[in-house]
Amino acid sequence: MLNSKSYFSLNGQPMADNLPVDLLNDRGLAYGHGLFETMLLSNSSLALIDRHLTRLCDGANTLGIPLDRSLVLQCINLFLDQLNAKSVTEGVVKVIVTAGEGGRGYQSPAEIKPSIICSYSNLPADLSDYRSQPLSVRYCQHRLPNNQSLAGIKHLNRLDQIIARAEWSSKSYQEGLMFSSSDNLIEAISANVFVKNSAGDWVTPCLKLAGVAGVMRSVMIEEIFPACNIAISIADVSCDELAKCQQLLICNSVRGLARVGSVFDAQDRLVKSLPIDQQTLMLYQKLIELYSQYK
Amino acid sequence: MLNSKSYFSLNGQPMADNLPVDLLNDRGLAYGHGLFETMLLSNSSLALIDRHLTRLCDGANTLGIPLDRSLVLQCINLFLDQLNAKSVTEGVVKVIVTAGEGGRGYQSPAEIKPSIICSYSNLPADLSDYRSQPLSVRYCQHRLPNNQSLAGIKHLNRLDQIIARAEWSSKSYQEGLMFSSSDNLIEAISANVFVKNSAGDWVTPCLKLAGVAGVMRSVMIEEIFPACNIAISIADVSCDELAKCQQLLICNSVRGLARVGSVFDAQDRLVKSLPIDQQTLMLYQKLIELYSQYK
Repeated sequence: MLNSKSYFSLNGQPMADNLPVDLLNDRGLAYGHGLFETMLLSNSSLALIDRHLTRLCDGANTLGIPLDRSLVLQCINLFLDQLNAKSVTEGVVKVIVTAGEGGRGYQSPAEIKPSIICSYSNLPADLSDYRSQPLSVRYCQHRLPNNQSLAGIKHLNRLDQIIARAEWSSKSYQEGLMFSSSDNLIEAISANVFVKNSAGDWVTPCLKLAGVAGVMRSVMIEEIFPACNIAISIADVSCDELAKCQQLLICNSVRGLARVGSVFDAQDRLVKSLPIDQQTLMLYQKLIELYSQYK
Repeated sequence: MLNSKSYFSLNGQPMADNLPVDLLNDRGLAYGHGLFETMLLSNSSLALIDRHLTRLCDGANTLGIPLDRSLVLQCINLFLDQLNAKSVTEGVVKVIVTAGEGGRGYQSPAEIKPSIICSYSNLPADLSDYRSQPLSVRYCQHRLPNNQSLAGIKHLNRLDQIIARAEWSSKSYQEGLMFSSSDNLIEAISANVFVKNSAGDWVTPCLKLAGVAGVMRSVMIEEIFPACNIAISIADVSCDELAKCQQLLICNSVRGLARVGSVFDAQDRLVKSLPIDQQTLMLYQKLIELYSQYK
């Protein structure tokens, strides 16, 4: 496979080393005024693209960015043509949508012309391990702030995740768990979480005040749990409850579904070991039955 | 004066329409992983550049970006040469420093090579009015989240300011006042605040949990208030206390110091009219005596 740096597009145009200088004035760079989606490219098509586009448009609406869904889709399809022409059929496609030019002053320009950026990267090197081996995860100390206006959407202001991810460098942990300021579990750094609590009930945290409402999370809630006849509820999960849980799953739309085998705290002490659970197997089987890309 | 879009540099190199495509993979654009400074260019030199550089380097340290102060200064000086060559002597110079390339995954690359972007824009059109006329300001409804790790620094995650600024479109207000989730005054959207409270004491909000610690704020605290023999303390200012204040000043390092004449709430109701105060005149006179650029 060619170097992943070779594939970019801006507003539907393939880009080499000739970006327009206006990008230095882009509100995405200046303020993080924009959103992104990271999608799994499998057999030349993008998994869950409708759900990704819906979340992107919802987020754009929250950020005051007028976004034409069909225009975004057109840019993505042109980018897929670009990849196809290079025989690139597997990997990760990221779409960034920003509020476009207008870098000085927080007030949005009277007329916003969004920038739509597509880029390609190879599949994560550890993807098959990630899906097949139980993960080790670690508590993050950095707390996600409550922000009702921004919670749920996948905006470009991601310093909380960067600060959390910088808390460890060891390769022993594949993910970090992030909590609210009230010590409720919210999500993993780049994934959502599902917890089978001590009573045996499956819950996933409420994301009304913090966190990103992942596309794979919505697939799990709306399709996979129901198809398995397993009840799933949205509820707070305290750090104490987490420490007593029977099972912990994490998911995102590139990596799919993964099982956590060991939970460590921020001082690297083992909190909990979690042997595999029959319901987890059912959920995983149902996911790959409906979406074979995540096998 | 020429079109302000003409002047950009990247890592010390003047940029026209030939940006390297790697910028689309920059962590500044991807996650807001970076910082910025906006400086007043006056008579071909940058006001308060030492303080700006210090804040920039402090912020870079917080965000895990290794930053060589002398390299940033070198890029800025090259950019000033570029402006001088075009006889551009007045305006605003913005420097963005990001964590550089490495757009996929929140973990920082093992070796970070920062991007240093300089850009120029004209002075704000309303600058002389802003400095000479009392301002009208409006309460923002959007609350600044508490975030101890990020408070104080001028990072690129500015969606809170964008959401707050989008709350009104009328030209009647020149600024918005932002509060914490506990209804304490923190700052204006793009300026810091100084309040003469009902007891006649000057205070400025504590920024340990939210807000940007402005360069002009530090000049006011460390130089201007002391030179006027006026005590200034850092303390919480509740929304109720604000409504009873005797005087409200706002400041930033481009616009300088300005006095608020009228405070409105988020429903556009007048909260308070504030006639000019003798101490405000003293503070303003002292500022322009020491820094004539802000006259």
